[in-house]
Amino acid sequence: MSGKLRVVGLGPGEPSGLTREAEAALAEAEMLYGYGPYLARVAEKPGQRRHASDNREEGARARAALDAATAGASVTLVSGGDPGVFAMAAAVCEQIESGPESWRSLDVAVIPGVSAMLAVAARAGAPLGNDFCAISLSDNLKPWTVVERRLAAAAEAGFVIALYNPISRARPWQLGAAFAILSRLLPTTTPVVFGRGVGRAGERLVVTSLEQAATEPADMASLIIVGSMETRIVSRAGRDPLVYTPRSVEEARR
Amino acid sequence: MSGKLRVVGLGPGEPSGLTREAEAALAEAEMLYGYGPYLARVAEKPGQRRHASDNREEGARARAALDAATAGASVTLVSGGDPGVFAMAAAVCEQIESGPESWRSLDVAVIPGVSAMLAVAARAGAPLGNDFCAISLSDNLKPWTVVERRLAAAAEAGFVIALYNPISRARPWQLGAAFAILSRLLPTTTPVVFGRGVGRAGERLVVTSLEQAATEPADMASLIIVGSMETRIVSRAGRDPLVYTPRSVEEARR
Repeated sequence: MSGKLRVVGLGPGEPSGLTREAEAALAEAEMLYGYGPYLARVAEKPGQRRHASDNREEGARARAALDAATAGASVTLVSGGDPGVFAMAAAVCEQIESGPESWRSLDVAVIPGVSAMLAVAARAGAPLGNDFCAISLSDNLKPWTVVERRLAAAAEAGFVIALYNPISRARPWQLGAAFAILSRLLPTTTPVVFGRGVGRAGERLVVTSLEQAATEPADMASLIIVGSMETRIVSRAGRDPLVYTPRSVEEARR
Repeated sequence: MSGKLRVVGLGPGEPSGLTREAEAALAEAEMLYGYGPYLARVAEKPGQRRHASDNREEGARARAALDAATAGASVTLVSGGDPGVFAMAAAVCEQIESGPESWRSLDVAVIPGVSAMLAVAARAGAPLGNDFCAISLSDNLKPWTVVERRLAAAAEAGFVIALYNPISRARPWQLGAAFAILSRLLPTTTPVVFGRGVGRAGERLVVTSLEQAATEPADMASLIIVGSMETRIVSRAGRDPLVYTPRSVEEARR
């Protein structure tokens, strides 16, 4: 039995954002599993079978990939960005823990990638240049009260905040609620960066303020970075502004 | 004047962890700047000039790179991991803000990479599978009281915590102090992952508990992930355990 499972991060989108290690795991796979739009980013290869699934079916997708690998196939499960950040790696671990004993002896490895917050931050300058956190605004798998508590704790302690899964058709109000919480704790002028499809054709980056953030359009493909009290905007003639958080923190400001 | 500056993330270490975009920025540079050990990871190219500097000289290094680009050169400044996470991108933005006006019109771009926490997390399973934060334990540029406050806030709010710059010869006690703070707020059994040189030859990954963490050796090349109350260890016969944080949070536990 030589089956194996690789959980691979595609990075922000274009092939130029993949690591060579990720490319190799895609090329050597006999079977590819993943959310349809992510699989569509991977170049077709003769003889390689593909199993696209909906983005709500993470547990079932992980089980199908584990089953195929246990049966002896070389399987690659693709994730957008990094598989370890609000993506497939945790779903696979959950299934291994609760699944058949044979899944625990399987050759499983996670291949990291450039997560969305790093891609958006790079395009904006260096907003994650000091301590930061990443919070998923999805309350499908955790109570909204936990999200509220984490947003408040992060803002009060001075973390820059990257918001994943900000909004969807099924979760229309959570992003507005998050901005309302943050607005009570941070200056209205706090820089906010909206990135959509960054690293892909048609990418969009908007730099605004916490005061204006609620009016900015966002969707499931958006990643939002809310600055800390230290985050700064550097205007540049003829170029987009740079948004960055200095490496130093002055005690008096916190 | 066609000068430009690219601030490039080398990822965890081996060439296989680079993105193609980063490879291209390294190949097209006329001049490379960086901390010596990072520059040493980049393949030599005829005609390309290299300027290695010490890791304490980030401001001076950024200024030298900006000057060279302003004078018309194609300059690449290398960073380990991702340039936006406790690395060179913020140092470059700081210098642009405080430097001559000509630096603001320069063609500057940041090329993201796989940050150390993503590489360590991938090797361990999915410890960053739910909300998490990244904190630098260096108190060179921020007061230690700020670090203490952020550690406590993160643990209390249930974030998984990635610790960057955990210890050095000049900062020998901060990591122990951090574990002491976290031990007062989290169960003694909380999983802790120590990664050193992950993604390079001789990498070392240790899974331990918060109770045992203070006895584990660490140095400047270490990245440490402290779990939340939800983080779990899955034992596997004949294989390293998987460490992961489930995607779901139960209200009763927080």
